[in-house]
Amino acid sequence: MSQDPLVIFTPSGKRGRVPAGTPVLTAARQLGVDLDSVCGGRGICSKCQVSPGAGHFSKHGLTVAEDALSAWNEVEARYDRIRGLPPGRRLGCQAQVLSDVVIDVPPESQVHRQVVRKAADARAVAMDPATRLFYVEVAEPDMHEPTGDFERLAAALSAQWQIEDVRAELPVLARLQPVLRKGKWQITVALHRDAPESGWRLIDLWPGFFEGPLYGIAIDLGSTTIAAHLTDLVTGEVTASAGIMNPQIRFGEDLMSRVSYAMMNPGGDAEMTRAVREALDRLAGEIAADADIAPERIVELVFVCNPVMHHLLLGIDPVELGQAPFALATSGAVRLAARELGLASLNAGARAYVLPCIAGHVGADAAAVALSEEPEKSEDLVLIVDVGTNAEILLGDRRRVLACSSPTGPAFEGAQISSGQRAAPGAIERVRIDPETKAARFRVIGCELWSDEPGFDDAVGPNGITGICGSGIIEAVAEMRLAGLLDPSGLIGSAAQTGTERSVAEGRTHAYLLHDGRARGGPLITVTQGDIRAIQLAKSALYAGARLLMDELGVDAVDRVVLAGAFGAHISPLHAMVLGMIPDAPLDKVTSAGNAAGTGARIALCSLAARARIEAGVGRIHKVETAIEPRFQEHFVAANAIPHATAPFPHLAGEVTLPAVSFNTGGGGEEGGRRRRRRG
Amino acid sequence: MSQDPLVIFTPSGKRGRVPAGTPVLTAARQLGVDLDSVCGGRGICSKCQVSPGAGHFSKHGLTVAEDALSAWNEVEARYDRIRGLPPGRRLGCQAQVLSDVVIDVPPESQVHRQVVRKAADARAVAMDPATRLFYVEVAEPDMHEPTGDFERLAAALSAQWQIEDVRAELPVLARLQPVLRKGKWQITVALHRDAPESGWRLIDLWPGFFEGPLYGIAIDLGSTTIAAHLTDLVTGEVTASAGIMNPQIRFGEDLMSRVSYAMMNPGGDAEMTRAVREALDRLAGEIAADADIAPERIVELVFVCNPVMHHLLLGIDPVELGQAPFALATSGAVRLAARELGLASLNAGARAYVLPCIAGHVGADAAAVALSEEPEKSEDLVLIVDVGTNAEILLGDRRRVLACSSPTGPAFEGAQISSGQRAAPGAIERVRIDPETKAARFRVIGCELWSDEPGFDDAVGPNGITGICGSGIIEAVAEMRLAGLLDPSGLIGSAAQTGTERSVAEGRTHAYLLHDGRARGGPLITVTQGDIRAIQLAKSALYAGARLLMDELGVDAVDRVVLAGAFGAHISPLHAMVLGMIPDAPLDKVTSAGNAAGTGARIALCSLAARARIEAGVGRIHKVETAIEPRFQEHFVAANAIPHATAPFPHLAGEVTLPAVSFNTGGGGEEGGRRRRRRG
Repeated sequence: MSQDPLVIFTPSGKRGRVPAGTPVLTAARQLGVDLDSVCGGRGICSKCQVSPGAGHFSKHGLTVAEDALSAWNEVEARYDRIRGLPPGRRLGCQAQVLSDVVIDVPPESQVHRQVVRKAADARAVAMDPATRLFYVEVAEPDMHEPTGDFERLAAALSAQWQIEDVRAELPVLARLQPVLRKGKWQITVALHRDAPESGWRLIDLWPGFFEGPLYGIAIDLGSTTIAAHLTDLVTGEVTASAGIMNPQIRFGEDLMSRVSYAMMNPGGDAEMTRAVREALDRLAGEIAADADIAPERIVELVFVCNPVMHHLLLGIDPVELGQAPFALATSGAVRLAARELGLASLNAGARAYVLPCIAGHVGADAAAVALSEEPEKSEDLVLIVDVGTNAEILLGDRRRVLACSSPTGPAFEGAQISSGQRAAPGAIERVRIDPETKAARFRVIGCELWSDEPGFDDAVGPNGITGICGSGIIEAVAEMRLAGLLDPSGLIGSAAQTGTERSVAEGRTHAYLLHDGRARGGPLITVTQGDIRAIQLAKSALYAGARLLMDELGVDAVDRVVLAGAFGAHISPLHAMVLGMIPDAPLDKVTSAGNAAGTGARIALCSLAARARIEAGVGRIHKVETAIEPRFQEHFVAANAIPHATAPFPHLAGEVTLPAVSFNTGGGGEEGGRRRRRRG
Repeated sequence: MSQDPLVIFTPSGKRGRVPAGTPVLTAARQLGVDLDSVCGGRGICSKCQVSPGAGHFSKHGLTVAEDALSAWNEVEARYDRIRGLPPGRRLGCQAQVLSDVVIDVPPESQVHRQVVRKAADARAVAMDPATRLFYVEVAEPDMHEPTGDFERLAAALSAQWQIEDVRAELPVLARLQPVLRKGKWQITVALHRDAPESGWRLIDLWPGFFEGPLYGIAIDLGSTTIAAHLTDLVTGEVTASAGIMNPQIRFGEDLMSRVSYAMMNPGGDAEMTRAVREALDRLAGEIAADADIAPERIVELVFVCNPVMHHLLLGIDPVELGQAPFALATSGAVRLAARELGLASLNAGARAYVLPCIAGHVGADAAAVALSEEPEKSEDLVLIVDVGTNAEILLGDRRRVLACSSPTGPAFEGAQISSGQRAAPGAIERVRIDPETKAARFRVIGCELWSDEPGFDDAVGPNGITGICGSGIIEAVAEMRLAGLLDPSGLIGSAAQTGTERSVAEGRTHAYLLHDGRARGGPLITVTQGDIRAIQLAKSALYAGARLLMDELGVDAVDRVVLAGAFGAHISPLHAMVLGMIPDAPLDKVTSAGNAAGTGARIALCSLAARARIEAGVGRIHKVETAIEPRFQEHFVAANAIPHATAPFPHLAGEVTLPAVSFNTGGGGEEGGRRRRRRG
């Protein structure tokens, strides 16, 4: 055969003929195959490892000879001796194509490798990070052809990597000369792009070959908690996660109270900005320590947050977000230096990216949920609720996506609940009430046993039960409704009405006794009438928001429901529906997406293409303003009943039968009735 | 005539037909005529004033009717009432074209008006500043079509000014919302571009219409002095100038001693960086106070400086500039935020631009001289010397331009001279010596009289003569040579040899008595043998640099010489040539360009096109390295004689006859001879 050898790359299937003697890396580049290399083909980085095939490939009608690739050369032998080359692997930059060959590019050798987000989820993200490492050999200075060291670095990047338009800021420019000389004119640079078509920014550099990896942190900056995921910018893997309370809580538990604080206290916004930035800096330092990496390896941050947190993070007074027309200072994605946010516990050149907001009440967190859950690609009509102190709600399908936010308040997170606490060891998280005996059994965080199982008391210990968390209170209320302890209006029946001594009088109302730990020195945990009212307010707000979006689309039902939010993962679909948190839907169509906002942040951290996608996408999401929509109030009032005053819940009815009880004695003294009317 | 009216604009000569009723401003824009407007045609800014012609224009074959433009409307009447419209002027945005008309656009109504740099200089710069003001009306937020305030500002700039790609950094973004509301959605923004094709950066904003003007400061950052020119960014006029000593002098008088300081003292470079930045910040504050303007109006800085000052300004260790191959960290133009230089006494969003360097020894100051003097456009061969502590030398014409620097040392600035001082009141700046009597007469800075004119003593007062400055010592040495007090080797003759008691013995050498103020309590001012040697060293270095460039071009003479540098303006061409500072040339072809580096800085401040020009231009200037060129030493030694040991000075000989004296008695004890040999 006088023809050039044929090279077929898998899994891409790209193929073509190259002159005999062409290195595999060169062939891959010529054929547009995604094969990684940091050192530019110098046999240093080993990122270009490939697995050549052998034998007959009937699919391709090709038989690959044993010596289709050149034998190991000295570079490969040395690499194998020092660092070890896995069996069957070759360095793509060294192995040369001699005859027809099939070459597999393993996932870890692809720059744009697919990152499977979770086992149960088929959707994947192709790695396309904003910051990458490049090894480069820079020409030495020549007195007779004078150019600056930086200009020669730029020329080398152009020649060796086809990278044009590189900029450097002063601090890294000031380090260039000693690093170049220490590395004997061979250095590794970290370059960052704002967008796929942007110029490159030199953010750090190391003498010689620096393997990395570099890291980014995806941060879900919530009103109550801040969650951070340290992510490897090559593999996309989460190396460490950490969470802390948002220290702004001391200025107000919910968003509007923080806006009020800024309005009432001159400099209050700056105070809250300082608090959250200090916490973020500590968090970055801690997560680096946890993962045992140098903070300098953290070169990127991605933030998702609601609009008020967004403004307070950026140092913008959120006052306009507290009043109609709820104007954001900026709605687009924000790109800036991490040091502009006062963050020092990471690379000095680190960059930050804040996802775009959808509207004054629908923030970058909702955008992140959309990026993660992709309602705009859904064939069926999906309702996505991200449950937190503020609920973000998305409704739509391929044709149209709507969004709103709803001020549920912190009850779903265990706050404003008499025995409430955040989800931590000792908190009751699951509850079951026997419809006959009205007795409760439960599980607490940190213990696998149910409370009625043998050994439970010993397992949790005398101080092991401390309160009830968000998912626990939701289940408790739903179970009370299922057990006939609670009527549709939300009234707890008396002991006489319910036939159980677990209903105890508290003033003019009643409370349900969930757990009495007093004999062992522990707390008395009850669900009070006030707790029921708090949950009713929260769930009514959530339902009313969803319902408003359904009105806007002109539908009475949704095909499926996705519960998002760190806490969405712990809500049982049945209990959520008994409570009427969400519209009626087939129970098997109610799923949890986990922390979808955090997942969206991670996707944006790993992929510039994803950033471009959501920046274009937010403009196509139609936002509905709950705060000024009269129908929201109507929906809110109607949703106060459990599960609902007027809407039928046919799918729920197919699953359970709700007791038809009523505990309102009609007296003017019924405390709950008065309160409900006042709120309506 | 059913045709549309014809509009002819002068001075551009642009012409075209527009529909009757078209505002003049609109017609100008359609025809590509440079007519300013900040308010976008709303009758607020009055920048679009025009002077319509009347009567017959034979050049254009056109008779303009009295009513060729529409009558004054209410907006013009109000403007005239409140602010006054000059006679014959109309507001271009209000006056409508009704019939054929000739319209003159006065210089002050042109954005790109020509700035004539000085009366004697025909070259002009067209205003094309990087920072401009734009008045804009922003749409109010709409809850149902949510976008950020910044995004609506960007949309308004696009619609009203065709400006795309606007960015804002956090501090100005944080001020956007209150300013928009204070201005009732009408604001004026200051936008900055890095280059003509770059995107725009929002650097400041004001509620309503803000007239400006904004200012920039052109800064010539020298080793010894820092000169600053506050420049109006609309007119290009210098509003105030100020100069201070460079506080880095305490770390070393010349560049190499500062590089040594950085090498010998850890953190020494940072110490020098801090010193110069603090001085610059003070200087900015003082110049704003002098001009009685708010520091916030200063939105730009342009720096020219030698490479060592360049690196120390930017916070880059200059150590590489102290040793071959003299590698710059960066040679390109540097664009950055003024706050990155720690400068606070100006607008918080102010930008800084540092001109590119040519090479490790030929800096942004030489680039600025090239920008100002344009040797690359010269028909004849021009030698440009910028005299300072370090001399920058350019030689070339349309075909080729060469550059080098030469370490003259500070003698030309009056330093290292026994009675030397900087150019300040009391310093002797002009000297004449009578060839017969050998008596000196002189002038001092601050007094118009010569010392032999009546009333001089009273005019200067008893303490009025304090020393001798750079131009004074040059003239004194040249006059001593002309008067036969000094022989070609630089030896001062004894009283016996010269026949004057003004030659006084000082150890084994002699000094010339220039002024004895002791009787009146003033100083004794002499020119010592040591002073002569210092001047010889400096002038030899200067001449040798020029000569090296001539060698490189293969020429033995230049057509003309330009003396630049603040101090170049004060050197008499004859004396410079007697001294042999510069090669022989026709005396009338030796001119002064004043502070050409400072002029180059001002040009770059006023014109983005000029920045692009010099950035492209430096790459075409061929740099010759004096420090390692053996012929430099040869030229240096030969140039030690006054005017020169070997080169003929035919033009000089045509002007004066230099006395053929020789004071070397041949004895081994002649101090000057020893020193000369040692230096050779």
